[in-house]
Amino acid sequence: MAGKSLVHRVQVLHGPNLNLLGAREPEQYGRVTLQEIDAQLADFGRARGALVQSFQSNHEGALIDRIQQARTDAQGLVINPGGFTHSSVALRDALLACALPIVEVHLSNIHARETFRHTSLISDIALGVVCGFGASSYRLGLEALLEHLER
Amino acid sequence: MAGKSLVHRVQVLHGPNLNLLGAREPEQYGRVTLQEIDAQLADFGRARGALVQSFQSNHEGALIDRIQQARTDAQGLVINPGGFTHSSVALRDALLACALPIVEVHLSNIHARETFRHTSLISDIALGVVCGFGASSYRLGLEALLEHLER
Amino acid sequence: MAGKSLVHRVQVLHGPNLNLLGAREPEQYGRVTLQEIDAQLADFGRARGALVQSFQSNHEGALIDRIQQARTDAQGLVINPGGFTHSSVALRDALLACALPIVEVHLSNIHARETFRHTSLISDIALGVVCGFGASSYRLGLEALLEHLER
Amino acid sequence: MAGKSLVHRVQVLHGPNLNLLGAREPEQYGRVTLQEIDAQLADFGRARGALVQSFQSNHEGALIDRIQQARTDAQGLVINPGGFTHSSVALRDALLACALPIVEVHLSNIHARETFRHTSLISDIALGVVCGFGASSYRLGLEALLEHLER
Amino acid sequence: MAGKSLVHRVQVLHGPNLNLLGAREPEQYGRVTLQEIDAQLADFGRARGALVQSFQSNHEGALIDRIQQARTDAQGLVINPGGFTHSSVALRDALLACALPIVEVHLSNIHARETFRHTSLISDIALGVVCGFGASSYRLGLEALLEHLER
Amino acid sequence: MAGKSLVHRVQVLHGPNLNLLGAREPEQYGRVTLQEIDAQLADFGRARGALVQSFQSNHEGALIDRIQQARTDAQGLVINPGGFTHSSVALRDALLACALPIVEVHLSNIHARETFRHTSLISDIALGVVCGFGASSYRLGLEALLEHLER
Amino acid sequence: MAGKSLVHRVQVLHGPNLNLLGAREPEQYGRVTLQEIDAQLADFGRARGALVQSFQSNHEGALIDRIQQARTDAQGLVINPGGFTHSSVALRDALLACALPIVEVHLSNIHARETFRHTSLISDIALGVVCGFGASSYRLGLEALLEHLER
Amino acid sequence: MAGKSLVHRVQVLHGPNLNLLGAREPEQYGRVTLQEIDAQLADFGRARGALVQSFQSNHEGALIDRIQQARTDAQGLVINPGGFTHSSVALRDALLACALPIVEVHLSNIHARETFRHTSLISDIALGVVCGFGASSYRLGLEALLEHLER
Amino acid sequence: MAGKSLVHRVQVLHGPNLNLLGAREPEQYGRVTLQEIDAQLADFGRARGALVQSFQSNHEGALIDRIQQARTDAQGLVINPGGFTHSSVALRDALLACALPIVEVHLSNIHARETFRHTSLISDIALGVVCGFGASSYRLGLEALLEHLER
Amino acid sequence: MAGKSLVHRVQVLHGPNLNLLGAREPEQYGRVTLQEIDAQLADFGRARGALVQSFQSNHEGALIDRIQQARTDAQGLVINPGGFTHSSVALRDALLACALPIVEVHLSNIHARETFRHTSLISDIALGVVCGFGASSYRLGLEALLEHLER
Amino acid sequence: MAGKSLVHRVQVLHGPNLNLLGAREPEQYGRVTLQEIDAQLADFGRARGALVQSFQSNHEGALIDRIQQARTDAQGLVINPGGFTHSSVALRDALLACALPIVEVHLSNIHARETFRHTSLISDIALGVVCGFGASSYRLGLEALLEHLER
Amino acid sequence: MAGKSLVHRVQVLHGPNLNLLGAREPEQYGRVTLQEIDAQLADFGRARGALVQSFQSNHEGALIDRIQQARTDAQGLVINPGGFTHSSVALRDALLACALPIVEVHLSNIHARETFRHTSLISDIALGVVCGFGASSYRLGLEALLEHLER
Repeated sequence: MAGKSLVHRVQVLHGPNLNLLGAREPEQYGRVTLQEIDAQLADFGRARGALVQSFQSNHEGALIDRIQQARTDAQGLVINPGGFTHSSVALRDALLACALPIVEVHLSNIHARETFRHTSLISDIALGVVCGFGASSYRLGLEALLEHLER
Repeated sequence: MAGKSLVHRVQVLHGPNLNLLGAREPEQYGRVTLQEIDAQLADFGRARGALVQSFQSNHEGALIDRIQQARTDAQGLVINPGGFTHSSVALRDALLACALPIVEVHLSNIHARETFRHTSLISDIALGVVCGFGASSYRLGLEALLEHLER
Repeated sequence: MAGKSLVHRVQVLHGPNLNLLGAREPEQYGRVTLQEIDAQLADFGRARGALVQSFQSNHEGALIDRIQQARTDAQGLVINPGGFTHSSVALRDALLACALPIVEVHLSNIHARETFRHTSLISDIALGVVCGFGASSYRLGLEALLEHLER
Repeated sequence: MAGKSLVHRVQVLHGPNLNLLGAREPEQYGRVTLQEIDAQLADFGRARGALVQSFQSNHEGALIDRIQQARTDAQGLVINPGGFTHSSVALRDALLACALPIVEVHLSNIHARETFRHTSLISDIALGVVCGFGASSYRLGLEALLEHLER
Repeated sequence: MAGKSLVHRVQVLHGPNLNLLGAREPEQYGRVTLQEIDAQLADFGRARGALVQSFQSNHEGALIDRIQQARTDAQGLVINPGGFTHSSVALRDALLACALPIVEVHLSNIHARETFRHTSLISDIALGVVCGFGASSYRLGLEALLEHLER
Repeated sequence: MAGKSLVHRVQVLHGPNLNLLGAREPEQYGRVTLQEIDAQLADFGRARGALVQSFQSNHEGALIDRIQQARTDAQGLVINPGGFTHSSVALRDALLACALPIVEVHLSNIHARETFRHTSLISDIALGVVCGFGASSYRLGLEALLEHLER
Repeated sequence: MAGKSLVHRVQVLHGPNLNLLGAREPEQYGRVTLQEIDAQLADFGRARGALVQSFQSNHEGALIDRIQQARTDAQGLVINPGGFTHSSVALRDALLACALPIVEVHLSNIHARETFRHTSLISDIALGVVCGFGASSYRLGLEALLEHLER
Repeated sequence: MAGKSLVHRVQVLHGPNLNLLGAREPEQYGRVTLQEIDAQLADFGRARGALVQSFQSNHEGALIDRIQQARTDAQGLVINPGGFTHSSVALRDALLACALPIVEVHLSNIHARETFRHTSLISDIALGVVCGFGASSYRLGLEALLEHLER
Repeated sequence: MAGKSLVHRVQVLHGPNLNLLGAREPEQYGRVTLQEIDAQLADFGRARGALVQSFQSNHEGALIDRIQQARTDAQGLVINPGGFTHSSVALRDALLACALPIVEVHLSNIHARETFRHTSLISDIALGVVCGFGASSYRLGLEALLEHLER
Repeated sequence: MAGKSLVHRVQVLHGPNLNLLGAREPEQYGRVTLQEIDAQLADFGRARGALVQSFQSNHEGALIDRIQQARTDAQGLVINPGGFTHSSVALRDALLACALPIVEVHLSNIHARETFRHTSLISDIALGVVCGFGASSYRLGLEALLEHLER
Repeated sequence: MAGKSLVHRVQVLHGPNLNLLGAREPEQYGRVTLQEIDAQLADFGRARGALVQSFQSNHEGALIDRIQQARTDAQGLVINPGGFTHSSVALRDALLACALPIVEVHLSNIHARETFRHTSLISDIALGVVCGFGASSYRLGLEALLEHLER
Repeated sequence: MAGKSLVHRVQVLHGPNLNLLGAREPEQYGRVTLQEIDAQLADFGRARGALVQSFQSNHEGALIDRIQQARTDAQGLVINPGGFTHSSVALRDALLACALPIVEVHLSNIHARETFRHTSLISDIALGVVCGFGASSYRLGLEALLEHLER
């Protein structure tokens, strides 16, 4: 499929503290690193004729800047907003403004954690949500997004 | 993988009103019927060496009976509890008692609907949740469950 | 009007415990039985050229089954959801899926009873609500529904 | 029944803004005017041997004055309290003090509107409630009241 | 004390439905009429060298008009706001604007009635509150106000 | 007491998932099965001259049907409503309608479990409640009911 | 009136910290001490043929003991429960058990203070409430109680 | 612009107690009177070719009457609903029914006052809101309305 | 069993106002006194080889002192915390610190009383709860505790 | 006024996503860009002898840095905090610390949007608020601020 | 510093169950006893020229008595209110009345425990709070108080 | 202790606006600057053989970056999260991920300020909390942390 000229472009966004994946609490989050996840997503995308790029930041503003940029260089977003999920109206506004289909993913099952993690400011403006399957949440979310874009 | 003798057995459970799929509100839920979804899931499972069986009922008690039976004839559950998601403690108790890994799926993005649909009595005891991708939610959920069982 | 070939068909649905009418707490609910109410409703309907059929069940699933069936054999529903009024999302979903005009009725004035009876999961999807007039609530509700269908 | 000397007297009360009926938002409230509704109610009452009088005001105090007067010149009330439904304890107190059977009616289905319209300060002291059937809500409410008075 | 030239002037204000006192629910509110209460208060005031005037209205606006007037012709207010106690910000604002000492009184014990009667928009800007002693609530409230004015 | 002709008849009702007792989570619920509990209760009753019959179902409707039947063939109920405790208004209505003395029992201490288990729709209409003592909760509840019936 | 043989006996109860009156925050609570208040109340009572006795304690248990004793040696209670107003169910139970008419008084206007002071566990079981008039609250409350007893 | 024949007509509405402006609490509300504000608004409007008329009342009903009249003699409303802001559903309904662009203004910053002033029943149906700038709030609100009408 | 040297020792604790049993509101609480209950419990315990001692106080501190002492002279507690059930964190802490199995009992069905009685600060740390069976609640609770100790 | 040496200096602050103005959702926010708004504000200020400078950032920290700087180089702030309005205590603290008069503005009517937008952490510390008038909100807010500074 | 004649006097207060320190749950609270803590605090105070006295009681009233006494024999209080922290308005009132600087301390981190421990009735009237450091919380709190007194 | 080779390393973190200390609202926060506090903490640490480094930022992301770095170059954290205390889940996640003992400090008594400052997202994962003692809060918090590390 590499020879196909018209590929979908997908931006993957990782929120705060996800750069620690593999190093932090491996018994809970597994030993796979963010770099490995990003590589797998890129491979998975390439196999379906999509260009998948990733970006991580601990800075809300940097994530917003990147989302704004996605308006012109992506057709869809896969986002794990991390701790910003529950409090960032600004992130929500950026996602609303970019007007792209969004898939929200979480490594852990946020419904089985602290109460304040049960509320998301992103879910209701997303296409759909995948949570609880560790690194696989990203891949399943990307799969769902590509399926949506291909329709 | 077809020659493998030891397959995983997965029970798919559909809650109330899902038998109407394809007929009811096709613009919202699509035109694919529950029979077609079940066939696709069975195919998808077979290709990965898993036996996937499906069951739908509008009766809470019948679903509980089936879940209890799954204790002896399945290794995992994919469940779309439909309207029981938000109110059935009995269903939750049955799922707790069967002690199998559970994946909760929803056709629509429940976070973008009425407030009473934002609370699930199942999510916190599930492995993970997939919602918002129409019939694909089932397949993605099954994929996640099989990956979990294969580990 | 009896000779009219094209009549409206209306399904009347009685939720749990309404089979006890006339026997249970007669000082509160009166001595008229459900059979008598159903006969009166059928008579009332016939006089206006409508076929009125009734169904009662203590089983939520059986009511849902009957509502689904009404999609093809009725043009409107009069429903007294009884105790399911306040908790059954599945019943609401069935009513939504059948896409017929619905009139919600209650024998007693639910606003003058326990707090948990003040919330209905049905009212906002109904055409209108009639409550507090005993067995007459049904007849007034049927009248309102027929008027709506005749328009 | 016109010859009957001892008729029931019913007072119909219309709260604020109902004088605009027919003129305001006709696509939502229909084109029938309050004068026409009042005439229909008077006719309907007359046919059952009841004298039905109507009163509308945008002034809470004027409605209270009229309710107090009803203590001596009516046997029952049909009231559409309009916007006062949700906030006027004074109106409730007047209705309590008049000690007559009251039927509360609403043109629209208040359960399908803004949240603050879901709470009524009148419902729990009413005989019953009818809402959602446009101008017919009045007639059905009057019918229910007369039936009650005739018992 | 009748010969004393410099008397205190007190305005007594009765909210909606209090004109019915003596006639309405005598077993609960007693058989004394508002006219009798006003006469007793005037006598009580006169004996302590105070001019006590009373005003009742079912109209919120009329009460506000009278409170505004009290700014120039009274040194204190005794008010039973009736049903306006719990909802009228406008009345509160009028009382705030008149900047006089206010005593809030109620015939019944509002804490032993419906929940919505437990909240008062007047109490926190009053000098004090007397409730539950029937017609005596007025006299005790007036006594407290005069004591305050005499200090 | 075995020779006594006039015995009390008591209906014991087990809600959803209680059929799994002894098999499910034995470390939490013990190894005694529901059959053994029912046998013990029957023995205990017989020794006090009472006929004790038991019924279990995962179906809310089946439990309601059985409760309605108890109106004519029992003088009291011991019920462990299981997951229906917290959400079934229909079950509550059936118990209200049967107008028998009811004792609510729970194997586990529901106050030490999830928050949604702290609210019961049954407790306030029961004679009393026993919870937390495993299978003994049933026997203590039956003892309390018999004592009540014998008074 | 001193020669009258049959006097009413009234128990005045002061809750925690009221022993500090006159010493603590005189600008807010005035300079009159609890002893002076008690003397005034005794005088006031004597003049109306009533024996008024007072008791203060910082100990909830001691107040409850005294209330229990009042069952046999008083016909009414005037109580300023101080800080126990808002949290002591035990005090409420003692007052309920003594089955005497109770008048609740407060020096300050509790409605103009912290939110947690707006809720009283005593008010709904009291005859009435007087608050906000400093030491005069007691005298007005006693007056209301005597009036009640004399009726 | 004075020569322009087709001017916009704007109705300014002042709610309860605003007639006291200049007299009441001048340190908080300033010394400008309502008459002066109205004159300034009329001048401001005239300079932009608009006819600005003002109306004040302490009576909710009178304000509703005037709003209804505005349906035929104005193209827009500037309203300071005063104390009715937070509780009058009837006023909201009148504004909804008149179907004109509305600008809500407040002299003081209602967000910096009591909690019950933070909720407005008008704001969500207004074009916009201006608050906190004293008498200037009116002029800024009028300016915004005219700009809207001129578009 | 009287000859058995190693008996279980159980401390029964009665909270505030329970000393009035038999005297207060006999129609609600029965005519049996606390002394009689204590004697029955001692007898019941003796018959099963247990030493049962009782203690009542209206003083929270005295109850806490007694609970602390129980750490060394009892193997289990039966407690009716009365009004302290709903507010005493200190009592809860004392019970936590004594680390003995606790059975909470109530004479009345607290779920059928005021809302504030529905919350217990003790239940979740108790073995189990018995309520609603009058004096029998104590005996049933003691029975459950002894059964637990004997295991 | 250009020759005046002592001008007021005003800092305008735009929160996250406002850089997209004109490009994002033009049908809702209009086609005017932030650059054009800033130019208009500078012009408007200059005409009244004020220096108006603008700053936008998607980074909360950058906005806080700029607010801190304003302590020394501005006399007032006009701020549209965007999505930070509802969640940023840090922004509020910065505004509190700068101790300048603040005017809060919003393009849209936040009261007519999602519930979480109805709460502002800024409004109660602002001089006043203007919302709902698109780009004009800024100009009206600036006008109000200048008027305040000129006083 | 021992020769200094004018020392600060500090009262340390320990609420209910703290007398068990060292004996109860040593793995959570450590093995140091209250006597040892009191000795350490006295030593620490003496070294800084302060007289530190300690008092423990399980009786709320006794603590209040001691706080009242502190008005005349101490310049500051260090208090661990234990279980009274969350419910005792009377203790709060005593602390308010003594008008001394107060430092609130807790052995455990109350924010990491049950929800009802997150609310303190003391914190907002304290100088400051120290919690979570076991016995060191007392010493740090005393240090803070002495620093405050020495200023 | 200076010669000791193995010192503890502690990272002190200051959240937004704390760079203004000494300059902003000195009457409330004192005149000591953040530089002075940091110097004092370094001195205090050095005297106990610990290396104390400080970092301040108004940028949430920068604080998170620094916390992540602390995983490898510190053994404990003292953090004053400022305005981020109440809303930043991302900061909480970073602190959780660094898995170091944390002491939370605040200059002011947050319990005596606005309600939204009473909730902390950090406290329950901290070792302990110190608040209300101005700059001393830092030193006391550091002392507590060192004591913990030395154990």
